[in-house]
Formats: sequence, structure tokens, C-alpha cells
Amino acid sequence: MSKRNDKIRLAAFNFSGMYSQGWRHPDVQSDGENDFDWQVTFARTAERGLFDMIFMADESSLARPISDRDMLSRLSSVAGFEPATLMAALAACTQHVGLVHTMSTTYEQPYYLARQLASIDKISKGRAGWNLVTSGNPNEAANFGVKGGTTLHADRYRRAAEFHHVVTGLWDSIEDDAFLLDKEGGRYLDPEKIHALAHEGEFFSVKGPLRGGRSPQGHPIIAQAGASGEGRDLGSRTADVVFCSTHFIEDAQAFYADMKQRTVAHGRQASDLKIFPGTSIVWGETQSQAEDRFDEISRLYPDEIALENITGAVQLDVSNYDLDGPFPDLPPTRGMQGHQRAISAFAKHNNLSIRQTAQRLASSSKHRVLVGTTQSIVDNLEEWFMGYAADGFVIMNPYRLRSLEDVVTHIVPELQRRGLFRTAYEGKTLRENLGLSRPESRFAATRAVRSPDVG
Amino acid sequence: MSKRNDKIRLAAFNFSGMYSQGWRHPDVQSDGENDFDWQVTFARTAERGLFDMIFMADESSLARPISDRDMLSRLSSVAGFEPATLMAALAACTQHVGLVHTMSTTYEQPYYLARQLASIDKISKGRAGWNLVTSGNPNEAANFGVKGGTTLHADRYRRAAEFHHVVTGLWDSIEDDAFLLDKEGGRYLDPEKIHALAHEGEFFSVKGPLRGGRSPQGHPIIAQAGASGEGRDLGSRTADVVFCSTHFIEDAQAFYADMKQRTVAHGRQASDLKIFPGTSIVWGETQSQAEDRFDEISRLYPDEIALENITGAVQLDVSNYDLDGPFPDLPPTRGMQGHQRAISAFAKHNNLSIRQTAQRLASSSKHRVLVGTTQSIVDNLEEWFMGYAADGFVIMNPYRLRSLEDVVTHIVPELQRRGLFRTAYEGKTLRENLGLSRPESRFAATRAVRSPDVG
Ligand SMILES: Cc1cc2nc3c(=O)[nH]c(=O)nc-3n(C[C@H](O)[C@H](O)[C@H](O)COP(=O)(O)O)c2cc1C
Ligand SMILES: Cc1cc2nc3c(=O)[nH]c(=O)nc-3n(C[C@H](O)[C@H](O)[C@H](O)COP(=O)(O)O)c2cc1C
Repeated sequence: MSKRNDKIRLAAFNFSGMYSQGWRHPDVQSDGENDFDWQVTFARTAERGLFDMIFMADESSLARPISDRDMLSRLSSVAGFEPATLMAALAACTQHVGLVHTMSTTYEQPYYLARQLASIDKISKGRAGWNLVTSGNPNEAANFGVKGGTTLHADRYRRAAEFHHVVTGLWDSIEDDAFLLDKEGGRYLDPEKIHALAHEGEFFSVKGPLRGGRSPQGHPIIAQAGASGEGRDLGSRTADVVFCSTHFIEDAQAFYADMKQRTVAHGRQASDLKIFPGTSIVWGETQSQAEDRFDEISRLYPDEIALENITGAVQLDVSNYDLDGPFPDLPPTRGMQGHQRAISAFAKHNNLSIRQTAQRLASSSKHRVLVGTTQSIVDNLEEWFMGYAADGFVIMNPYRLRSLEDVVTHIVPELQRRGLFRTAYEGKTLRENLGLSRPESRFAATRAVRSPDVG
Repeated sequence: MSKRNDKIRLAAFNFSGMYSQGWRHPDVQSDGENDFDWQVTFARTAERGLFDMIFMADESSLARPISDRDMLSRLSSVAGFEPATLMAALAACTQHVGLVHTMSTTYEQPYYLARQLASIDKISKGRAGWNLVTSGNPNEAANFGVKGGTTLHADRYRRAAEFHHVVTGLWDSIEDDAFLLDKEGGRYLDPEKIHALAHEGEFFSVKGPLRGGRSPQGHPIIAQAGASGEGRDLGSRTADVVFCSTHFIEDAQAFYADMKQRTVAHGRQASDLKIFPGTSIVWGETQSQAEDRFDEISRLYPDEIALENITGAVQLDVSNYDLDGPFPDLPPTRGMQGHQRAISAFAKHNNLSIRQTAQRLASSSKHRVLVGTTQSIVDNLEEWFMGYAADGFVIMNPYRLRSLEDVVTHIVPELQRRGLFRTAYEGKTLRENLGLSRPESRFAATRAVRSPDVG
């Protein structure tokens, strides 16, 4: 029946401070993000649901500048763990689920980043991944000595490309089979199989090799979520997984086709890159229960938090309108047009006021939201997957662990029943579960060319 | 009987590549350092022995430049984990033992470092510690774009002092009781209890506050091992624990007295700083069994590795001597005189050749070595402790897990029998086990002074 012979992939989204009022929901442990045991439960729930990975988003700052003290005090973004250390600890508490976290190419050092990711990959026996971001947030810049906002977008992406080249080179600098462990002969390593990187570039000068050696996946998985031209270019050239935020299936299909085309243009297979649209899920036994639940979580968002999304994302000046009046027709504006169209359509379709629209938007973190029953939600996921709008989904959890539990308990079994989702992990590593091949060390390749009798 | 009413503290030293030929010993798992399960066993063995902490040393490079390929291939320094991620993972596998690891102030960013340490402290529920080092090794410099060797020693220590000030300020930037978690009122935090750091200094500009908030210990423990004037000054002002390498009790007593004096001069209590000399232990049922074991491990060190220690530490030009001849009388030279004197005395006392001296030195990583039975080893530890040469010891393990097991099985019970060591962990956090008070946030203190009715 299926035209596709691959299966849907799932990532469980986690980000302290996301769904910023989620902590207020009656079913939510308000300080869960700050509680390591809660984090273990979250990861194990995703693993129980056979998710490919948990994805830990991050920013190296609070969600607002300190001058916005009153607003800051309403958000849970101050809570939670640093993601590399959290993933390392969760690696010791799980066995199958992938552990992908965000680190920035704008403020990090490639040697540290390469080493920490390889180390998590070793601790987890091949389940680490890196969401590579370029950090456009001025609150982060202020924590790293960058004055007057952030670096220019193009500079960030040039630095990101060089950063990626250095990190992957460091991961390759000790070949897989370098370890001899010859006690008699006193040879720990084969000296032919350790390589300087000797990188000298515009932003970095890094000698190498990497202390720690190559990790189980060769390269931990690389995820990205860049939406700009530069972002799409880097993602299609270097990423294994791309996260995105698309609201209509046509937009998602266009993004999917564009990314796959770019991937092939870079000399890769289309299937080397997996596309995961963010998808917020509010499940109910019945449609009306699901809608009540969505309403309940939405109403936790005070105006000043909810309306930011309208003024920011949709560029609507709310001071000209009655907040309880119907969502107005918007003139076409520059930027985020798909998003704006999606929001208007969503408001009209559901007959929502401006305030209700803003609140619903906030509670689904601006991602598309599926409010419904097992059947309607799975129908939608199937449609997007079969229609080549998605290879998988980043599941957003508006009321956190409770949301994820709903997905694992109700959505996953129905996906399995329809033959759309795994019934057991296929492999041992994240790379194997995603159906991706393991990259050879770039130095092994070179050595094999130089002296074919060695390779 | 005891003049001291405190007890001996113990740290278990771990450093991939240390005792560089230890991997060749018949009782050693040659790739143990690279195996997470081995690392868990090491940490749990220390915990079984009620050690205060494991101490993970580190350098962000291999032990030799890549040009030294042949030598590199004999060393296990390429193996192992990045320490922050390893400590985070071990936190999830242990319950009591402290987890102290090295991170450098010369190449790291204070915001990342502060956040990772606070995160490990939260994951471990109060057991994290930071060995603050300034990284004088040119192999590391080459991985961070620093050309032509390292930065000047004094610059490194000025940067380290500012770095420490920023990190501790970030740890303080969200007060302990900032979390309100008021679901009804919609207040996650008390806005009065979050603070910008707004640091502007010679090396760093960091706005803060720290995402993640304050950690269980307030400040994770700070360890240092600086031996220079600048190093001693920074350590006595800012550290909780100082590691050192002293060979004679008189030298150790002088170092101990100097550090305690400096500590008091900085307005602290002498007991706020704990001094831990590195101590390598080779245990035997009998003295001759211990000596045979020391001989066995020493003979694993090939000349080119062993002799480096003689030419480096003692400044002896071996080309003028027969390696199998007796260790010569050395003229007094500049630098490391205590160490040189210790080595000469050790060689003479044990009637060792130059080669044997070099090999023994290498196998104990240049730290003092106690080769003996339970009685003689514990006598020595007691003498150093009672004589105010030490508050505790960093136990060096020449044949790694086997060495540590010997200490836990034989030395710890005898220390306990003599009333010199705990029989159960005293507290929940590393700080409590070390008998150190928990620092208040510097901002809480300020706020209390500004408005006494609030404090
Ligand atoms: C699902 C998803 C997750 C993201 N996670 C992060 C994150 O953890 N940290 C971050 O700084 N940016 C994150 N971003 C932002 C993207 O990395 C990217 O900067 C943004 O989509 C704008 O694209 P551009 O950088 O190409 O302009 C995320 C975006 C999406 C859609
Ligand atoms: C027991 C011990 C452990 C040490 N661990 C490290 C380490 O992990 N990384 C490092 O770069 N230096 C380490 N050092 C070196 C010291 O941090 C310090 O640089 C050295 O003792 C020289 O002192 P100075 O920096 O004041 O000149 C260690 C020293 C000792 C005695």
C-alpha cells in the first residue's frame, strides 16, 4: 500500500523554557526541567515509544534580557541543564534512543565541541548528535563579549561552515582501526593512523589530532534547522537531519523538495538527509476533549506573552484592534509569509479571536499543531509522510511529559498498526536507526589512494 | 591520641595517558580508559572506598606533538573521554563520590564552563568540582589558534583570576530561593532574585545571568595545583582543594604552612583550604612482594620514555653516563630542587641504577611513591597527616584499577581502624563531605546589606 519503503522517524523535542507557560498546567511538574529524574523519565518515555532521538534545543542565555525582569520572572527558561552534560548523563540512563543537542558555532571552540560530542558518542555507544546552530540571539552575544548585538548572518554561516569542517576533521584524525593495544610490542597505536589536522582558515587554526580518538558513529549525527538560503545550503551539504517549521503541506513539500534537490546538487543521495517538520500534538479521546485541552493550555498564556507572537511573527499591530474581536485579514508582508498565512487560516478556520489565536500560537511554540484524536492525528502524519512533506517529525509537547506520554501511548501504536513506524529499534547506533551509512575517516580515504596496497 | 580532630581525605586520580605504560601491565585492561564501563567501575571502586572524590586530570591535546609520531604510538593518551561529559555520565552511575575534573581558563569561555559545572552539580545533586588550570602546554595552544607556544605565565594567571571571578559571579546570578513556581500567580521566579553580572574586564565581557540557575553546592568545589607564586596566590585565595607534588615531609610541611598562611592572609580560615599531595601507592602482602610489583611495572617503561623524566625533571644529561651504573651525585641546579633531591635520595636509598630510577619515576608519574605493606603505607600517610604535611592525598594508581582496588581493600580499612578515615559519608554533597561551608550568593549578600528587612 505504501509508496515509500522507509518509515516515519520521530524526535521528542525538549527545551527548557519552550511552551513558556507549560509549567503552569495542572498536570505538569512545574520544576520538571530542573529535575534530573524528570529528564530521565522524559528520555525513557521517548525510548519506550521507540523514538529515534530526543532533541534538546538550547540557547546560551535566558529568553529575555535582564532588563525585562518582570517578563523573565514568568518564564521557565532559567531552569534546566546544560545540554552536553545532560545528554552525557542521559546516555548512562538509556540504551537505544538518540541524544541530539544544540551547540553553537558562533561562540564555541571546535576542539572542545568535537571532543565533547565524540565523548558523548562513546559514552552512549553511538547515539550522539549535534544540532549545529549559528546563534542569532543578541542575549547570547552579550554573554560572550560580542558588543552591539550579534555578528552578521553571512559571517556566522561562513564561520559555521569552517567550524563544521574542523570538527569533522578532528573526528577523523584518529582512524577507527588505529588502536593496536599490543602489550608485548609496546604499541598502543598504529603511528600511520594518527593524523594532524593542521587546519589554517579564516576563523580557526587547529593542529589536532583529537584526544579521545574516533567515536562509534565515526561522526555523531549532525542536525540543523537553518531556514535562510545560507542555512539551507549548509544543511543540505553537511546535515543528516534538518528540523523545520512548516505549517501547510504545500509549503512543507516545497521545502522538502528544495532541500532534497540541494542535497543531490552537493553530490549526496537524497535519502542522506532526513527532513523533520516541528509538529505540536494535543491529543484527546474525542475531538472536543482535544480542543478543550488545547483551550486549557492556551489560556495559561498572559496577553503580554501571547501577543508577542502576533506582533513578531505576523507583524500585526494589536493596538489598533479589539483583542476579543475576530482575527483580521492581513495585508501580505515581507518575511515569514507561509507562517503568516498559516496563522490567518488557522484563526479563521477555528473562528478565533486575536487573543485566542495568540495564545494557541504561543502554546504550540509557533509550530503547526495537530489537535485531535488518534485517527485524525495519524492521518495527518501519514499524509505528510506519504506526500513527501516529511521524513519524520519533531514532536513538540505543549504540556511536556504528559504530551509525550499521549503520543507514545496513542499515536505510536496506530503508526505501527499502519506499518508506518518501527516495532523495534533496527540498529545499535542512532545512525543505524536512521538508516544512514557510517562515514569513513577522510584520512583513511586519502591514505588508501596514496598507497592502495595499504587500504 | 590524634592531635587533629579532622580526618584524612582521599581523591582517586584518573587521567588517560598517565602512567603511560600502565596499559601494558598484565593485570590492566589495556583499553580501559576508553571503555565507559571501566570508568564506571573505577568511580564505584572509589565510592566503595568512601573516597571524597575522583579527580580527572586533563589536557586538550595528546601528550606529544604529532611530529613525535613514534613516541605517540606508545602512549595511551589518545584514549579516554572528555572529562565534563564523563563526569556528567558518572554522576548518573554513583551516589556519593565527588566528581572533580580539569578545565582550562586559558581556552574556555567562562559562560560555558560555569554552565557545564553547575549542570553537573545539579545532575550529581551536589558532587561536582572544577580543577582550575591555566594550561602551559604548547600542544594545547596549537589546538586553539595560539601560535608560537603558549601565552605568558603571568598573563595566564591574570586571565585565570578574572575567569574565576566571572564563573563564580555567574553561579551567584540566580539566588538559591529565586524559584517561586507559583502556578496561580504565573510567577516562576522572584524578579528581585535574578541578577545581571554585567562584567566588563580585561579579558571578558559577560552580561549574565546564568541559564540554569544556582546549583546544589552554590559553588562547585574548586581545586587547583599551581606551584608557582602566582599559582599559590590564586589557589590560597580561591581554591577549596590544592593538589601538589611534594616528596619529602619537610618540603610538604613547608608548602602546607605557606599555603595555609596565604589563605589566612586572604581573610579565610586555614581550614577552608585542603592540601592533597599526590601519592603513588604500590601495595604488597609483604615488603618484597610490593617491591617486586614496583619493579614489574617499572620495567614496562622503555628507555626513551623513562629517561625523559631524568633529563627533564632532574636535568641530568644521561649521554655522559652508563644507564646501568649507579645514580650519580647531582650538582644543585635551578628549579624543582626538592624534586631533584627526592629523586637522588630515592635512588641512593634503594641502590638503583640510572635506568631503574628513571623507570620508577615514570611509573609513579613523578609523584612520591609508597612501596610497602598495609602497615608501612598507612604509617606514612598518618605521619604526613599528623605532621601537617597533608589534609588528604591524591592517590595515584600505577596499575590503575588494580592499584585503586588494593588501596580500597587494604589501606582504607586500616586508616579507619586507626580512626583516621570516615566509616560512612558524612553528608550528601562533596562540600559537606569535605567539611566546607556553602557560599552564599554574592548578590544575596549585597541585597541583604541594601535592605536589611529583606535578608
Ligand atoms: C525545530 C527547530 C529547532 C531549533 N532549535 C534551535 C536551538 O536549539 N538553538 C538555536 O539557537 N536555534 C534553533 N533554531 C533556529 C535555527 O537554528 C535557525 O537559526 C533559524 O531557523 C533561522 O534560520 P537561519 O539561521 O538560516 O536564518 C531552531 C529552529 C527550528 C525550526
Ligand atoms: C596532582 C596534580 C594534578 C594536575 N593536573 C593538571 C591537569 O589536569 N591539567 C593541567 O593542565 N595541569 C595539571 N597540573 C599542573 C598544575 O595545574 C600547574 O600548572 C603546575 O603544577 C605548575 O604550576 P604553575 O601553573 O603555578 O606554574 C597538575 C599538577 C598536579 C601536581
